[in-house]
Amino acid sequence: MLRDWGSRDRAFVALTARVCERLTALAGGDDRHKCIPVQGSGTSAIEATLGTFAPRGSTSLVLVNGAYGRRMAKILEILNRPHRVVETEEHTPPDPARLDAILGADPEISHVVLVHVETTSGILNPVEEIGRVVARHGRRLIVDAMSGFGAIPIDIAGLPCDAVVASANKCLEAVPGVGFAVTRYEGLMEGNAHSLTLDLYDQWKVFEASGEWRYTPPTHVMAALDRALETHTAEGAVAGRRARYEENCRTLVDGMRALGFETFLPDSLQAPIIVTFRRPADPKFIFNTFYDALAKKGFLIYPGKLTRAESFRIGCIGAIDSDTMRAAVSAVGEAMCELGVTSGAPAPG
Amino acid sequence: MLRDWGSRDRAFVALTARVCERLTALAGGDDRHKCIPVQGSGTSAIEATLGTFAPRGSTSLVLVNGAYGRRMAKILEILNRPHRVVETEEHTPPDPARLDAILGADPEISHVVLVHVETTSGILNPVEEIGRVVARHGRRLIVDAMSGFGAIPIDIAGLPCDAVVASANKCLEAVPGVGFAVTRYEGLMEGNAHSLTLDLYDQWKVFEASGEWRYTPPTHVMAALDRALETHTAEGAVAGRRARYEENCRTLVDGMRALGFETFLPDSLQAPIIVTFRRPADPKFIFNTFYDALAKKGFLIYPGKLTRAESFRIGCIGAIDSDTMRAAVSAVGEAMCELGVTSGAPAPG
Repeated sequence: MLRDWGSRDRAFVALTARVCERLTALAGGDDRHKCIPVQGSGTSAIEATLGTFAPRGSTSLVLVNGAYGRRMAKILEILNRPHRVVETEEHTPPDPARLDAILGADPEISHVVLVHVETTSGILNPVEEIGRVVARHGRRLIVDAMSGFGAIPIDIAGLPCDAVVASANKCLEAVPGVGFAVTRYEGLMEGNAHSLTLDLYDQWKVFEASGEWRYTPPTHVMAALDRALETHTAEGAVAGRRARYEENCRTLVDGMRALGFETFLPDSLQAPIIVTFRRPADPKFIFNTFYDALAKKGFLIYPGKLTRAESFRIGCIGAIDSDTMRAAVSAVGEAMCELGVTSGAPAPG
Repeated sequence: MLRDWGSRDRAFVALTARVCERLTALAGGDDRHKCIPVQGSGTSAIEATLGTFAPRGSTSLVLVNGAYGRRMAKILEILNRPHRVVETEEHTPPDPARLDAILGADPEISHVVLVHVETTSGILNPVEEIGRVVARHGRRLIVDAMSGFGAIPIDIAGLPCDAVVASANKCLEAVPGVGFAVTRYEGLMEGNAHSLTLDLYDQWKVFEASGEWRYTPPTHVMAALDRALETHTAEGAVAGRRARYEENCRTLVDGMRALGFETFLPDSLQAPIIVTFRRPADPKFIFNTFYDALAKKGFLIYPGKLTRAESFRIGCIGAIDSDTMRAAVSAVGEAMCELGVTSGAPAPG
């Protein structure tokens, strides 16, 4: 990130091509697929993907069990694209059998949209089972793989799937400022986008012609992603990264349970990305004070995002290992002491 | 940029607030104004501004004399916003008297949109004169100040103007990845945007409530901008930076003219940002070879962007001074030698 790249210079064109090829391969793509990076946040890439892929003349079905699924439905609403929402509780994955019935009954649905790891709770959604149902009905799939991409396997060609969307700054451990969609040529629609800057078809055409970004790319952020992908490969790619995160997650959950905390999800549904803990019953537990105490010790955590239960969240990803997670658990223990909270146990029920 | 900021942590909320206050002040804003940063390229910020400010029920008039003005018209077209285009030649500023007549004759026009420094040619457009005409007719103004912001003075309160749009990576000398609009409260329209991520009204409301970005910000890019604004202040803010760029521009133009090159614009219309030179008449001058020769010497230049005349462009901005420009001119001289081009003189006429 310390080099100033010329955004239209050949060296940067080559860097972009290299990054996109690696991301396509990580998504399980082949020569029918292309990675299209998008300046901005992960949500920018999600909006670009829905704007480019979700049809104006048929229905997109959004499977929702958290804030990120709801956000995709909101985007479709703002974009005036016909859509239906099927929502399950935040601790409940979408049901492939129910989807099968819905697709069977509603021929207007052309696309199914879902989140792979819904970080509202930390739940791993069954993208392969959903993909099989969607394929059996001859419909198309779009996956928000934001928070798991690079650590939770995904296979765009095998699913099959029109677009897998993610960003640089989650499991790829680069810095924020760029998202991307690995896409399938045949799903791209010219003139479907609602936006100039968020049009993946247009960007794809320009990449084909010149290898250049249409509008100024975040060069330093892309350079960081290029380097981060080397590190990812050196760690053993998806399998290597997943193993470290799983150990991080296990260390965190075991340690927090020993302090009395309870996870929101059963272990069978928990992705090793971010863990939601129920709020302790002890009234001395005040989240902001707890956050500050941990921040002073060098650990930044997340507030809860559940709509019903009070909770907080701790991430398992980034350039950290199980020693870091043990230190985090120790810091939680110390912070509880400082707050006078004797147990992390939530209220029953 | 070497620190990993928590994007919702208080330290980063404070950094964002500090950066936005400084940018508002640089735009000549007061307590009626607010700076709203936008993840992505400068064009992302332009699209967000037009999407949020350009009405659906009245006409926006775009004054075009280059690619960036045309791009704004294209955005309005994609967004289905009523608009009219008034175009002048690429070496001709928009005419305030003609605008006066147009606004007098067309009460449907509520907003006027123009580019301050149109880098297609490098021309400085007369934003103050245009602003006076717009104000006299009680219409509203939106300025794309992308390439001059921080070096060419602009006064959002004095114009007055609904939005001044720019980015981190031009005269502010930070890195690409974030744009911003300094906006006037009263121009913001709820629900007018065509997009979730590019909605300045929504982002403004969230900043008011929590100081947080709605979607993950490019934290490292913002940290660089924070530091770059300190450097900008230390150099004497807009006046100091302008003086250096004017010297850069003068050194470049004088040196290039000594080699026989001709500028596309007369000096009176030339902004000290980027200079367009006419293509030498000598058939041995091949742009790509010339570009490569200069790149080898450490200088990256730009191809021409004019619709009619063949040209190339050399920038005057960035962390460079007149010594750098002298070295650039020397490199051009050497590159001409290598190509066997004896004079930079273009074909007559």
